[in-house]
Amino acid sequence: MLDFPIIQGRGFRNVVEGGRVTGFAFQLRNPNYRGFAASLLDGVEVLVDGERIPDHVPLWTLQGRTFTLEELRASTDVRWQLDEPATITVPRPGGLSAGVHELEAVVQLRRSYFPPLVARTPFTASAKAVIVPPAPAGGLRFGVSTYSYSGDVHTSMTLEDVFADIADLGADGIEILGEGNIPGYPSPDSAWIDGWHGLLEKYGLTATNYGSWVDTTRWRDRDLTVEEGAAQIQLDLRLAARLGFTSVRPKFGVTSWDLDPHPIWEEAVERSLDLAAELDVVICPEIHAPTPIKHPVTQGYLEFIERTGSEHFKLLIDTGIFQTEPVRDYAEEIDVEEGEEVPAHLRPLAVPMADLVEVLPHVHFIQAKFFDIDDRLHDRHVPWDEIITTLRTAGWSGWLSSEYEGVRAPGRGRDQVRRQHALLRTLCAGR
Amino acid sequence: MLDFPIIQGRGFRNVVEGGRVTGFAFQLRNPNYRGFAASLLDGVEVLVDGERIPDHVPLWTLQGRTFTLEELRASTDVRWQLDEPATITVPRPGGLSAGVHELEAVVQLRRSYFPPLVARTPFTASAKAVIVPPAPAGGLRFGVSTYSYSGDVHTSMTLEDVFADIADLGADGIEILGEGNIPGYPSPDSAWIDGWHGLLEKYGLTATNYGSWVDTTRWRDRDLTVEEGAAQIQLDLRLAARLGFTSVRPKFGVTSWDLDPHPIWEEAVERSLDLAAELDVVICPEIHAPTPIKHPVTQGYLEFIERTGSEHFKLLIDTGIFQTEPVRDYAEEIDVEEGEEVPAHLRPLAVPMADLVEVLPHVHFIQAKFFDIDDRLHDRHVPWDEIITTLRTAGWSGWLSSEYEGVRAPGRGRDQVRRQHALLRTLCAGR
Repeated sequence: MLDFPIIQGRGFRNVVEGGRVTGFAFQLRNPNYRGFAASLLDGVEVLVDGERIPDHVPLWTLQGRTFTLEELRASTDVRWQLDEPATITVPRPGGLSAGVHELEAVVQLRRSYFPPLVARTPFTASAKAVIVPPAPAGGLRFGVSTYSYSGDVHTSMTLEDVFADIADLGADGIEILGEGNIPGYPSPDSAWIDGWHGLLEKYGLTATNYGSWVDTTRWRDRDLTVEEGAAQIQLDLRLAARLGFTSVRPKFGVTSWDLDPHPIWEEAVERSLDLAAELDVVICPEIHAPTPIKHPVTQGYLEFIERTGSEHFKLLIDTGIFQTEPVRDYAEEIDVEEGEEVPAHLRPLAVPMADLVEVLPHVHFIQAKFFDIDDRLHDRHVPWDEIITTLRTAGWSGWLSSEYEGVRAPGRGRDQVRRQHALLRTLCAGR
Repeated sequence: MLDFPIIQGRGFRNVVEGGRVTGFAFQLRNPNYRGFAASLLDGVEVLVDGERIPDHVPLWTLQGRTFTLEELRASTDVRWQLDEPATITVPRPGGLSAGVHELEAVVQLRRSYFPPLVARTPFTASAKAVIVPPAPAGGLRFGVSTYSYSGDVHTSMTLEDVFADIADLGADGIEILGEGNIPGYPSPDSAWIDGWHGLLEKYGLTATNYGSWVDTTRWRDRDLTVEEGAAQIQLDLRLAARLGFTSVRPKFGVTSWDLDPHPIWEEAVERSLDLAAELDVVICPEIHAPTPIKHPVTQGYLEFIERTGSEHFKLLIDTGIFQTEPVRDYAEEIDVEEGEEVPAHLRPLAVPMADLVEVLPHVHFIQAKFFDIDDRLHDRHVPWDEIITTLRTAGWSGWLSSEYEGVRAPGRGRDQVRRQHALLRTLCAGR
């Protein structure tokens, strides 16, 4: 699918030719209600951060071929279809800096069916668009969770759009929610599984973490048993392995405000460790606010690792635990405790970096949870500078997987994920 | 695709059982970020126009099976997936009246991974939703143009969604824009054409009118020739016939504020009449504001009919010519003449019904152009009561094809088309 705004989120990038950055490019959806012969185009004026590029300068790429304006006017066999975006390429040595840019495009189109004096029509589109710099080689690996696109998937994005977005911003890993993103869960048909592997290959992405749930209150009148919990974990381990994932995060039901997992967790996991080893999939419980690292819950997981000696049970850290400011605009419908303004897990827990360093050897995966990154790439909730410094200093080399959890307005998560990757990679490049 | 709002536009309808209206139904997108076992649902409270239906009353249809709340709680093998809407059925003898209703749904869900005191979560969704009454049998036929969904198609609607929307509101006809809706125009591949016919059959729709263009300013430095104009018309006639359409509206380039068609029109059409007859496709020029019926342009078309005696050249009326109020909120980017507030074709032309009656024998198709229908099904621009009365009195029995041309906000056209059909059919039923 295409974005509703005329300037598309995907495709805004610097253009590299022969190892040098020679300009930038972006994509436009056809702003008219019909497709048309490209000879009807009369140019596109571009404004980027207030700088004007005259309408005869940009190059047009339509249907796989690139044209100057004069070539476009003379063209006989190329069209701008409604379902095919145009790529506009603007020569500009050095291109654009990483981050958010004000972009405006004024497309001129001759519409034969309007009176001659008004037939030449400007279509104006503007956007704040994000240049994401390339990921630095080695060290941290950059991924995205489909959770970032909650609400957009199935309404304006297909699964292939998710892959395309992630690949377009230069990330390598895709994290999914098993019960969210697998049609026909828990028994997707084999055509869907083939399609999944086809998408991984087409977009060059790695399947990273698979989110699962152990819904201990699945039955209204009784709790889930250990047997049922183990069966759920094992079902998801098998499905995750079949899709190429290397870890599974089971989200256990909890019994307290501190997110103490339901007591079945330990035996249900222990009964699943052999299977995890056989499939080589790591089971990762999530350390999530309001539970910090120095807490009996996390301690319990560490003790479990020590006791079992398993290589297939490690920690998953949700970066919400490092928040330094409360989050007031959030995605979910959540009741708050009496007298509180913000739900417990969205208050600043501000876990110190020293605590992270201590458990890093046991950390398999990081969900890079965030809520809002502004036009200057500033995140007022999560201290990314400290987190990145800590991870790089410790030489940790796992996945940082974007998990946008801010307001669910259409397309907002897609834009915010680009901002987060621009921010994280800028921080990496800076040290 | 599904609608972003939780309450879906499609699927809101009265339920008929054994010839009696026993209630109403609507569809909900899963409001959570994950799919889940349906036993985690704790009911849905519905408010319709302020009337409260308690949460144990509505029936749930999930994955093709219908459940009471108690059955849902006890269910072991049914899920609410992210890609499968739930149908909520509310018993209510007589159902709901035609038109716009205030609908609210509060879904209760147990989320095991939230602290026990807040784990039972209400998800609240509200919408203004439209009950469209069945189309009266005989007489006028009701269709929809894809133009109504401009901006939505390819961004939140697939072509199949267009078919599903039209069928869901009980219309029988689909009108398309050849250069808009045919991927690979002018040479769609045969798989697409097979898919098109498959959709017509699956949704029980008739292909009505095919919009085409004769872009006389396609070349910047010279006008289109008669030969080129004829070739364009003939290309579209062939493609339209292949897709099952029975008329083609060529939109000619114009030469004046009055929309005088470019002089090549007459010979280009005349050279195409034999092909039109052979394919049995009617060529329909569009009578569109600011050109009224009593005008040399329309007169020229009527003279052409008389002179050629062709059965394959008739008029297409755009109901914008009957407007009684100017349109200030509109879809397109249009320059206006100096000193004018509203573009010429959006000012009230208020063509009298007597003029329509006079030309009705030559009218093949009506584009039911409109801009805004309010919550009381009132259209302040187009006098539908007069139009419907005139058409029914004259016994005209062609297609009225919805052409929404109001503001292009995501999903707005889809809702407005439902309103228009509710309005038109209520008017038909009222006389």
